[in-house]
Amino acid sequence: MSSRSVQEQIAPENEVLQSGLLSAVDDLYGGVMVDMKEHMDATVFVPLLRASLSYWREQGKRGIWIQLPIRLVHLAEPAVKEGFRFHHAEPDYLMLVCWISETTDSLPANASHSVGIGAFVMNSKREVLVVQEKGDKFKGTGVWKFPTGVVDEGEDICKAAVREVKEETGVDTEFVEVLAFRQSHRSFFCKSNLFFVCMLQPHSSHIQKQISELEAAQWMPFEEYAAQPFVRDHKLFNYIAKICLAKSEKGYSGFSTVSTTTSSGKTTYLYVNNQDLKQL
Amino acid sequence: MSSRSVQEQIAPENEVLQSGLLSAVDDLYGGVMVDMKEHMDATVFVPLLRASLSYWREQGKRGIWIQLPIRLVHLAEPAVKEGFRFHHAEPDYLMLVCWISETTDSLPANASHSVGIGAFVMNSKREVLVVQEKGDKFKGTGVWKFPTGVVDEGEDICKAAVREVKEETGVDTEFVEVLAFRQSHRSFFCKSNLFFVCMLQPHSSHIQKQISELEAAQWMPFEEYAAQPFVRDHKLFNYIAKICLAKSEKGYSGFSTVSTTTSSGKTTYLYVNNQDLKQL
Repeated sequence: MSSRSVQEQIAPENEVLQSGLLSAVDDLYGGVMVDMKEHMDATVFVPLLRASLSYWREQGKRGIWIQLPIRLVHLAEPAVKEGFRFHHAEPDYLMLVCWISETTDSLPANASHSVGIGAFVMNSKREVLVVQEKGDKFKGTGVWKFPTGVVDEGEDICKAAVREVKEETGVDTEFVEVLAFRQSHRSFFCKSNLFFVCMLQPHSSHIQKQISELEAAQWMPFEEYAAQPFVRDHKLFNYIAKICLAKSEKGYSGFSTVSTTTSSGKTTYLYVNNQDLKQL
Repeated sequence: MSSRSVQEQIAPENEVLQSGLLSAVDDLYGGVMVDMKEHMDATVFVPLLRASLSYWREQGKRGIWIQLPIRLVHLAEPAVKEGFRFHHAEPDYLMLVCWISETTDSLPANASHSVGIGAFVMNSKREVLVVQEKGDKFKGTGVWKFPTGVVDEGEDICKAAVREVKEETGVDTEFVEVLAFRQSHRSFFCKSNLFFVCMLQPHSSHIQKQISELEAAQWMPFEEYAAQPFVRDHKLFNYIAKICLAKSEKGYSGFSTVSTTTSSGKTTYLYVNNQDLKQL
């Protein structure tokens, strides 16, 4: 049933479908997705949901998804009373799910990790691009750090690193390699974090600092960066500085990108040690 | 205010706090967290929430979090009406948030990625551990794949790979390296996925197949695995097979682990090209 035909079947006075069922589209895993768009009262929603669940059970459906926009949050309680649980939420919607099959629940796991990048950008004078962030825990300590940022959902790590450096410092760069990555846990609530240290090649040098987020930005001799107590005394930062030094002296291979195409035609990046592969 | 003192102040007949405010604990970022535990009617909740918001505004608080267990889902609608939005949800709770400060919203991003592993396990006879999964899209095609699985939140990638191989095949292994990783988008809804190809060293050979998830599991000559049309004709799988071959012939360095300790004393793993670092 297309959304167009649903619209046509909605009786304006009460928004009940003539068919007495919620409008839903099949997903690829033997389930259905109900994308609630129109306003509906709980008194209308509950009988429709019950009739729909009976129908989907007869049809042998498995996972039933209800995407509730935040303006329809009043339907969350009745859906939970009918057996739905939360799956995930974004600022503007709540996704509810119910497994109605006798088979083992094979619903996909919720996203578990946020992803961040740190950018190692060194110029031909062996100076690195460093910043002091306004909202940072190091604020006021005089510590200089690599630019860092969040990889948005749907964004490639290699592109996020270039974007963050451009936004924070105005410097144009090109992605070279992931030099290392760190996984940490309970980054917020129970979620984990993956942080990728990326080497970027600078293509410009003029710094235009992002006023909203940065106190300061500059090019700094690498040795001066690495000599800061915060880098010297912290095993993680010390290790990363060593890797950056190794990389800048050409003796270290990180992971660079190979683009591949998925069965649906999208480009995805594989990150591999291309330097070693080429030597074989 | 500790949760103990809150309990003491709850008047049993209506569960209103004597203080007229919701119980909350400060977070580390200038905000507060309300962890709703006791049953509360919306008629009680709304005036408490309004009074609390006024109080927190006076106090200069910024992000206000409300964690609603699913049994209190009836409070989601009133919270949204008071200006809250969704932040994230897990099966058993919904997290709502409201930024009440004039300063720029610096709330943490929701988790954006799920994380998976694929395990390359080769024995001394150059046989690889391969499986046929029940719920897989390759079901019934005769395709043999590396064991794969989901990295749970809070779980280390290196440990998840060992766990999955043990669960699926009964084979004991030790993590060696991440050989490559792939980032893909829209893995479900708008979320992205990071998939790490891990090399593991087997410490046992007897296969005990996981009946609920696997059709079959076996040791297979690597050349036979790589000659499958599904591996040969698909750029991604072909590339990964090449990397595994390169690794098994000792000419490829992936990322192995270095354990570091966070400021709060937790162990976290940094994944780096240790082979290159050692040579320097």
